[in-house]
Amino acid sequence: MSTAIANWVVSLTSTSLPATVSQAALRSFYNWAGCTVGGAAHPATTIASRTLSRFFGPPTSTLLGCRLDTKVIDAQHAALINGIASHVHDYDDTHLDTIIHPTGPVAAALLSVCETLHRPIPGNDFLLALIAGIEVECKLGLAVWPSHYDVGWHITSTTGSIGAAVAVSKILGLTSEQTAHAIGLAATQVTGLREMFGSHTKSFHPGRAAQNGLLAALLAEEGYTSSLQALEAKRGWVNVSSEEALANLHIQVDSLGKTWETEKNSFKPFPCGIVIHPVIDGCISLHRKHLTSSEEIVSVMLTVHPLVLELTGKKYPRDGLEAKFSVYHGAAVGLLLGKATPAQYEDAVVLDPHLVQLRDRIAAVADPSLRPDECHITLTFENGARLEKHVDHAVGSVHRPMTDAQLQAKFLDQCVPVLGVDRANRASDWCWGLEARDDIRSIHEVL
Amino acid sequence: MSTAIANWVVSLTSTSLPATVSQAALRSFYNWAGCTVGGAAHPATTIASRTLSRFFGPPTSTLLGCRLDTKVIDAQHAALINGIASHVHDYDDTHLDTIIHPTGPVAAALLSVCETLHRPIPGNDFLLALIAGIEVECKLGLAVWPSHYDVGWHITSTTGSIGAAVAVSKILGLTSEQTAHAIGLAATQVTGLREMFGSHTKSFHPGRAAQNGLLAALLAEEGYTSSLQALEAKRGWVNVSSEEALANLHIQVDSLGKTWETEKNSFKPFPCGIVIHPVIDGCISLHRKHLTSSEEIVSVMLTVHPLVLELTGKKYPRDGLEAKFSVYHGAAVGLLLGKATPAQYEDAVVLDPHLVQLRDRIAAVADPSLRPDECHITLTFENGARLEKHVDHAVGSVHRPMTDAQLQAKFLDQCVPVLGVDRANRASDWCWGLEARDDIRSIHEVL
Repeated sequence: MSTAIANWVVSLTSTSLPATVSQAALRSFYNWAGCTVGGAAHPATTIASRTLSRFFGPPTSTLLGCRLDTKVIDAQHAALINGIASHVHDYDDTHLDTIIHPTGPVAAALLSVCETLHRPIPGNDFLLALIAGIEVECKLGLAVWPSHYDVGWHITSTTGSIGAAVAVSKILGLTSEQTAHAIGLAATQVTGLREMFGSHTKSFHPGRAAQNGLLAALLAEEGYTSSLQALEAKRGWVNVSSEEALANLHIQVDSLGKTWETEKNSFKPFPCGIVIHPVIDGCISLHRKHLTSSEEIVSVMLTVHPLVLELTGKKYPRDGLEAKFSVYHGAAVGLLLGKATPAQYEDAVVLDPHLVQLRDRIAAVADPSLRPDECHITLTFENGARLEKHVDHAVGSVHRPMTDAQLQAKFLDQCVPVLGVDRANRASDWCWGLEARDDIRSIHEVL
Repeated sequence: MSTAIANWVVSLTSTSLPATVSQAALRSFYNWAGCTVGGAAHPATTIASRTLSRFFGPPTSTLLGCRLDTKVIDAQHAALINGIASHVHDYDDTHLDTIIHPTGPVAAALLSVCETLHRPIPGNDFLLALIAGIEVECKLGLAVWPSHYDVGWHITSTTGSIGAAVAVSKILGLTSEQTAHAIGLAATQVTGLREMFGSHTKSFHPGRAAQNGLLAALLAEEGYTSSLQALEAKRGWVNVSSEEALANLHIQVDSLGKTWETEKNSFKPFPCGIVIHPVIDGCISLHRKHLTSSEEIVSVMLTVHPLVLELTGKKYPRDGLEAKFSVYHGAAVGLLLGKATPAQYEDAVVLDPHLVQLRDRIAAVADPSLRPDECHITLTFENGARLEKHVDHAVGSVHRPMTDAQLQAKFLDQCVPVLGVDRANRASDWCWGLEARDDIRSIHEVL
């Protein structure tokens, strides 16, 4: 199977891509770039950058959203740090069938290696490699879903290492055998335990996955050997990290190039676990219609998909990172503030007494009959009145995807504070125009 | 449990160490240094070094056994490459109860970080940190044994990352909480699938584990957070990577500082999977006594512990790396050449027609009643004569440990071809005198 995947990767050409897939990949990259700029100043990113600066090698690759004097570093560290930044606000993309955040590991590795190459990298070659990485990453995620995630693997990084290796192999033009070795070298670095959710290490995962995959492809290019059955062997990646039958892997690999996972990628309107989004969406609409203060609310009852409580059941978040795993915080900011952007996940906001008080009045119950993008909200007021809201499909879900205009507003919301209005608009134009660009290495001039 | 381990690490002092433990740690380091020099010129090491040289940061840390002009590189890459070199001949140490090769990941990370510090590092501080790392590494191995290994994890690197993080935390003087975060950051990087055995990637594992642990401790020192329950949580390291009960973890953590795993470390007389050693030992003794040519042998029957065939059943090895997983090759070189050093695992030797012919005449059967360090060998000759050999405990096992003199002969056998006689002897003296040394950063002058 490793070899079959490698063969598919090598044979993939731009002409075989449906236009909808290229467009979805472009939106994925655009969203990733904005999130990476938006996460550049977060402590998880800056601690990593500060700690590792003593090791930086020759500067070739851009750290997105950084000051000009610290902006170009070696490719391995750029992959790590951009990967961290892209995920740190939990604001990146989601492949809903697997809860993989696919672009982070793949784009961070791919971009950093492109900038080391001594030749122009056309935008469509870049997108092709990005698509190859995302497709393999998500197909592998589907092959090991759900037991891989259930047991405790952070599927974004465990599959992301392999996706990153594939994308880098593609842009380097590796042979099928080299690509298979790269897949093996990436597969053996199984990074990411779900126990880390709520700490800096959660965003370390996609960063390290980018680095793992980059390292894997570079070693394979130079003849480093791994196994050519790394995924399917008895003690290979699928069997070791999941309880799924190998037949699933066969089905997913056979579907490469027939169904496209990149098309199913979705983008988050809110910077937190995607399972909370229906609740936030509903609470924001209730805010707009009815509420300006929490005083009058006696209780809030949320009825949600079971995964919501499993993943985001933190009742008493102590800081912004923990609040991302609190459906209670999501509901509270939606109801009270009417929005949920990174600003509503600042530590000080999370500890605001009004929000703390409102969170205390919110209860949530799981209902397995609900879809993950669905929820019910019931408010009870001091005067005994009740208000109900049913969210059928949350904004940002596949049924209500964010429009390009919404994506652009999100991009600018993250980039303007870092880059200023002019540079942010220029960066937005540059990213939207990626596919037609002659050489994407000019990215360091704009982002 | 992560916190309990961290507390133990922080409280550990040289005065609380039994002398036998310090001596065992010294022998472990000595053996590691020789193996690392011996592996420096192997393709798995040189490919990694050549590939990654484009990323090398400021030079601080020694690559053991390298030419003076390429010898000092940044600490992260030194940890990786020394870790690869130390394991590439499968000639390093073994904690027999877990089959962990404990010193590689821990020493490679620890040595490389010591050389970055702007203060003298006394030899006994170095040994103390090494012991802390090896103890935690092996106790964790015992906690997840055997299911962790059985399912397919290369236990050397999966526990080695954590051991390396502990050793680096100790030498950096991290607090208990920082050490616990380092353990979490290391635990989330679960590197090493057994499927990679027989390829370059097997030795990549301890190298990457060293790097993982080093990175973990450095990030934790700067305030990067992980989980303080990384090992014991529902979706933490033990539950995700094994089927063992958490009670095992408790037992092992409670035994820290009471029983010492470092004392149980053993050293290999032969550069291959340790389970083959009884067969090689027996075959060498048969060679000495009876054989000078394979011509007269009609058949060889090996009766071995079941793990021998599971791990080293490669009947037709194609190169030196595969031969390390061939009990047939081990038996053949023992019988025909009377020795098994790295020279007998060169690719050309593995393909020698006389050895190929003899391997064809060797059969092996598993007998679960045998101990792992035991075997029976039966030779049948053309004239119908039979010769039997029972190996009760292989040389290098805990019952027949290598003496210091044997370790030194092994060290010099590996170092003389690389360093020359004078430097190799000086390096040997330097390593034996480690504990009393004022500053181990002088290592770059000798190794």
